[in-house]
Amino acid sequence: MNEIQILKGNIIFTDEMHSFSVHKNSYLLSVDGVIKNIYENLPDQYQDNIVQDFGDSLIIPGFYDLHNHAGQYLQCGTGMTKQLLEWLNDYTYKLEADLDNVEFAREVYGLFAKDLLAYGTLGACTFATSSTQGTACLFEAFKEVGIRGFVGKVNMVTNAPDYIIEDLDVSLEGNLNLIEKYSNHKKVKPIITPRFAPTSTEASMDALGKIAKKHGVPVQTHISENPDEIKWVKTLYPWSDNYASVYAKYGLFGTVPTLMAHAVHLTPEEIEMSKTENIYLVHCPDSNINVRSGIAPIKKYLEEGIKVGLGSDIAGGHKIQMNEAIVRAIQSSKHLSLTDPHAQLSLSEVFYMATAQGGAFFGKMGKLKSGYVLDALVIDDHPLYKNRYTLLDRLEKFIYTGDDRWIKARFIGGQRL
Amino acid sequence: MNEIQILKGNIIFTDEMHSFSVHKNSYLLSVDGVIKNIYENLPDQYQDNIVQDFGDSLIIPGFYDLHNHAGQYLQCGTGMTKQLLEWLNDYTYKLEADLDNVEFAREVYGLFAKDLLAYGTLGACTFATSSTQGTACLFEAFKEVGIRGFVGKVNMVTNAPDYIIEDLDVSLEGNLNLIEKYSNHKKVKPIITPRFAPTSTEASMDALGKIAKKHGVPVQTHISENPDEIKWVKTLYPWSDNYASVYAKYGLFGTVPTLMAHAVHLTPEEIEMSKTENIYLVHCPDSNINVRSGIAPIKKYLEEGIKVGLGSDIAGGHKIQMNEAIVRAIQSSKHLSLTDPHAQLSLSEVFYMATAQGGAFFGKMGKLKSGYVLDALVIDDHPLYKNRYTLLDRLEKFIYTGDDRWIKARFIGGQRL
Repeated sequence: MNEIQILKGNIIFTDEMHSFSVHKNSYLLSVDGVIKNIYENLPDQYQDNIVQDFGDSLIIPGFYDLHNHAGQYLQCGTGMTKQLLEWLNDYTYKLEADLDNVEFAREVYGLFAKDLLAYGTLGACTFATSSTQGTACLFEAFKEVGIRGFVGKVNMVTNAPDYIIEDLDVSLEGNLNLIEKYSNHKKVKPIITPRFAPTSTEASMDALGKIAKKHGVPVQTHISENPDEIKWVKTLYPWSDNYASVYAKYGLFGTVPTLMAHAVHLTPEEIEMSKTENIYLVHCPDSNINVRSGIAPIKKYLEEGIKVGLGSDIAGGHKIQMNEAIVRAIQSSKHLSLTDPHAQLSLSEVFYMATAQGGAFFGKMGKLKSGYVLDALVIDDHPLYKNRYTLLDRLEKFIYTGDDRWIKARFIGGQRL
Repeated sequence: MNEIQILKGNIIFTDEMHSFSVHKNSYLLSVDGVIKNIYENLPDQYQDNIVQDFGDSLIIPGFYDLHNHAGQYLQCGTGMTKQLLEWLNDYTYKLEADLDNVEFAREVYGLFAKDLLAYGTLGACTFATSSTQGTACLFEAFKEVGIRGFVGKVNMVTNAPDYIIEDLDVSLEGNLNLIEKYSNHKKVKPIITPRFAPTSTEASMDALGKIAKKHGVPVQTHISENPDEIKWVKTLYPWSDNYASVYAKYGLFGTVPTLMAHAVHLTPEEIEMSKTENIYLVHCPDSNINVRSGIAPIKKYLEEGIKVGLGSDIAGGHKIQMNEAIVRAIQSSKHLSLTDPHAQLSLSEVFYMATAQGGAFFGKMGKLKSGYVLDALVIDDHPLYKNRYTLLDRLEKFIYTGDDRWIKARFIGGQRL
């Protein structure tokens, strides 16, 4: 249809992770939802087109949250001083079980999807629960709100309370149903989601790996979140060289596009595997400190050339806002830097993780440059800031102190939501 | 006048730091702004009084921010990857100098006071700038908004750019003017504020200590924020046993009620001095990690019986919200706990710091019990949370994920603002 759209404002994004691209007072031109170019002065041929003029506002890419649990959204910020097992048994598993109720699932997932969009998360890779009908409600909630998603039915066949695990055949059938129903949707797609190695069996991982490969569906799971978990995996899979090798044996480590959340304590071999297998590691800084897992050495991973995205990890992390995840990633790296000055992450590095790297998992998204899909946010800050600070200062201020009320417009695929 | 006020709701506060006092569905009765009692059932004698029924909402004490810089509010969240000196020179000092302009000061301080109240900070101990007329605008802003404050004109006579320091006699005259003008105000009072030892001289500290003692005005300053600063103090005051002893020599360490912000790296002697001199240490967790000062060992201070309050430290800290400061204090203690499991702070301990301990600096405030002034917030959360979680879960959820939109009412001295 060749629908031309022109946004005007101060355009900022990260084309690479070490610096920001800043286009003051410029025109962002897209055709059919795909960015064509940025112009300082609008070319003559577009002079008759309507310009959506956002004045002195900032236009930035949307955020992509590569790891969270929609099925835990209600419990955000509760039980934060519990130990992991108590937290799972007293809060998480019960809530996840209740989300088999379709009415409740619609209500909770509707709130979750709405809040993601409000805070500028335009795409999310998310764990629902082991309930297939509940998970279907999460697909529908994302569709209704209009955000991008990779939505996973959680697969658990062992080592959890009976009321939350499934027989393997039931689990597989649920996956196949959701793949059949949603694989062709444009913005919301299925993702194979073993909860993690300890709640899987070799049979379940083998079957899930085969489904992922056969249907070309990506994979998401957890890896090396805390030392006890790593020991447990070694006990359960004594033949394994390391945690990653358990997933790798069953086609769940890079055979298809793969998200590995946490990666706090990877071995040198696992770091190498992550690189060669083209894994997306997902850093979840709030969660890692809330449940006292440790601090992932993200700067090192970036320097190794590994793809690292950012996750809110609702509800191990308590904030759905990705700007908060950016701040906590920088703060956590500063904690590391108290003993290793080289460990500190810059704002552009973490912004890149939250936008360009996250967007890459979804397609050509997360950058405001030619050939990329127009997923963008318009940020309007207080006049007192506008008058005093540089564009990058104002961006940093939004990241550190802003909330949904600062976001004046949201575009997904060129469509204003 | 014996004005009776009755609030109804779920009343929660910390009478001591190790547990919460919870009064489900109860009546909070105050007379002339002072709490008389909490009742499960309203006594017959009050049956004819109007009850402000907040239903299933939470009624909690307000927050008291014992350390922040009103003069840096505009720069919150900017320059967060700069080194301290660059941050001060490129951002802080210039902004502080501009706040000598009365019109600008009114605008900035008005925004600051309004935002404090919005986010539930009912009292704040704050640094303005070295400008006396600018500082007067901050007093006025607090008065206009109606919150409690100890407002300090910043005293700097050396070791900073010329445009931001004063001659000692000008500095002292400014203090005396503000003391004369504001000492008798009920809610907003002056506080003697040497910026810190390095921008002071022995003469300036001596004079300020004498003014504080003579006029019975409290003192606030910084101590032991980072190792370089501590070395610098030793160089400047080679006779001193430690940082605290510099202040102590001039009556600035406990002669009058005294706030010492940061205290990240106190020596055992300074810890002992803080205890015997009845100092309020002020923990500023966001700031300490943002500028990479380290992590203050707060659990240890609490166990020593030292009074420790909580500060946002705007703009070293980026969040004006005290619930965020509570979360970051817990998270920072969890970072410490990765190597010292005993270091972790509980929610009740940090809530106590932010309410009861902070309130104690202002008077009988910060607890919702008989004899205390009625400073309180009413928190209304989402129906989905109300139906599912305990009262303490819901409080924790507000602390971890809430914002000003959750605060449905604010009372100061019994007056709804």
